[in-house]
Amino acid sequence: MVDLDAVTRGNRLELARLLTEVENQTPAGEQALDRLFARAGKAHLVGITGAPGTGKSSLVSCLAKNIRVAQKQTVAIVAVDPSSPFTGGAILGDRVRMRELAGDPGVFIRSMASRGELGGLASATAGVVQVLDAAGFDFILIETVGAGQSEVDIACLAYTTLVVESPGLGDDIQAIKAGILEIADILVVNKSDLPGAENTARALRANLDLGYHLHMNHNGAHRMTIKENEVRNTPAWTPPIIQTIATQHNGIDEVVAEILKHREYLIDTGLWQKREQDRLRSEVYHLLQTGLVKRWQQSTPPQVFERLLQKVFARELSPRAAIDSLLNGSYN
Amino acid sequence: MVDLDAVTRGNRLELARLLTEVENQTPAGEQALDRLFARAGKAHLVGITGAPGTGKSSLVSCLAKNIRVAQKQTVAIVAVDPSSPFTGGAILGDRVRMRELAGDPGVFIRSMASRGELGGLASATAGVVQVLDAAGFDFILIETVGAGQSEVDIACLAYTTLVVESPGLGDDIQAIKAGILEIADILVVNKSDLPGAENTARALRANLDLGYHLHMNHNGAHRMTIKENEVRNTPAWTPPIIQTIATQHNGIDEVVAEILKHREYLIDTGLWQKREQDRLRSEVYHLLQTGLVKRWQQSTPPQVFERLLQKVFARELSPRAAIDSLLNGSYN
Repeated sequence: MVDLDAVTRGNRLELARLLTEVENQTPAGEQALDRLFARAGKAHLVGITGAPGTGKSSLVSCLAKNIRVAQKQTVAIVAVDPSSPFTGGAILGDRVRMRELAGDPGVFIRSMASRGELGGLASATAGVVQVLDAAGFDFILIETVGAGQSEVDIACLAYTTLVVESPGLGDDIQAIKAGILEIADILVVNKSDLPGAENTARALRANLDLGYHLHMNHNGAHRMTIKENEVRNTPAWTPPIIQTIATQHNGIDEVVAEILKHREYLIDTGLWQKREQDRLRSEVYHLLQTGLVKRWQQSTPPQVFERLLQKVFARELSPRAAIDSLLNGSYN
Repeated sequence: MVDLDAVTRGNRLELARLLTEVENQTPAGEQALDRLFARAGKAHLVGITGAPGTGKSSLVSCLAKNIRVAQKQTVAIVAVDPSSPFTGGAILGDRVRMRELAGDPGVFIRSMASRGELGGLASATAGVVQVLDAAGFDFILIETVGAGQSEVDIACLAYTTLVVESPGLGDDIQAIKAGILEIADILVVNKSDLPGAENTARALRANLDLGYHLHMNHNGAHRMTIKENEVRNTPAWTPPIIQTIATQHNGIDEVVAEILKHREYLIDTGLWQKREQDRLRSEVYHLLQTGLVKRWQQSTPPQVFERLLQKVFARELSPRAAIDSLLNGSYN
């Protein structure tokens, strides 16, 4: 059994044990999440995403150090690797790269990999983040590798989302940027000592302006519709573009300042609370779904479902027709 | 209204209209999926994935051409771009790069982007693929950009999964490969005219061998557990590694030959049928979930749910405790 009081008192060994339970979604882990729920909801969650090769990990280390040393806040890093769905492994570097902060109980690092099931990673990450939140960390940095649905899920979890770019990653990567730009609250051009950094920053600015322009004209499913317009008549946030050289600790102060500014913006406009409530709403809805299926399964003999499946396999019934007949009671 | 008979008779304009309905998950689209279900289940679904910059799109064009011209089979391409979650845009190149096959009714190309909601892309893609299957295409090539959860979802949809690599994409990309390798039935090293192609192929082989070795020792959640061991005592499939230069149509015959060989392997071992049934089973399960929630909503006043949510927002009740009380009827 994990000692929850020890976790909230700052016992790091117990924290690590609890996170393993939560990541594996064991009954003990689920119970702990339940009991810790009342203590969570205070940490500022920051998502950091971007294509491979942009130096995200170094940047995250620098940000953590700055938040801890200059801002005197506690900080946890959750490094998520959705590209490793089946092995359950995690990027080794994440565990060793923060040596300079080792021994400081105000800094904590956790690596995790995807569970291979749809939505599994997102919910495991949400659980891990909730525990770190309840354990009292002021900032939680959630770092992801890759560019896809997982980034969108994490953008939903974080209050502030950083998208990291770097100069000269080639055309195909440019295509990816276009989509990911839309979830950015802060844009970072890392490795800005490389040639082309100014061009990358300029291209990002042009893309952003285009995005806003498109929004004004077509009112499509653009990020402004999703984020800024959550609360009507809210002043819009224009994502700043910051050039950094993480390996030389260059530009880090500025990025942290923008994170703090964005947090303030969210709190002042009521968006912080709204995002938290939206997240809780989906969690409750998801649990409702699972609970209803469980209750249904307890009252229905498994053969009924299996017989129906056989008809679907034979393509005699479509999946929809099968479920309709099942729920209308016209099938037994 | 879309004319379904016209779609199955080969009317491409009606097919395109229907796909739009299905992609947008309109009632007409859902109804059409339902009616076309009995006609689907014959096409061989091939997933093609890999990191940006590997030349996947050129490779997919070459494969389509070979399947159409040399194998005399009809072929559809579904190009999925999960990195563009909010705009609904699609990569322009996909629509224009197949000019040489234009006018051939035995070839069809469709681009689609993510819907921005969890699982939205996977289910929209599944619908589009089912329509193309019912429309009679022999092969459906599903191409994805990026590296993440979406690739895993698509691996679940496809019978044969190709992972495309190319020489010299840098260390960070190597990390991604490790995870994605595990979903590969066929590995392609494209751009093999670049220096380092032999090294890449060798590294992949070493990685694969290591994977099998690990599996033998630890029996973890490795791909062999997921794919080859689906049916016990099935001979294992060893993913071949093929070097190609798609821009010069080099190595394409070999890749197509391996796709055909893998299809034969799946059919002979019963894995083809098993994968189809697993997919249908999850679809039915998903519909059951949705149906149960809908039924519950019809019998419960919305205020009950909203009042409960407020308690969760105030952190007086955890999400789990809220749902427990709701389903036990102890809360009103």
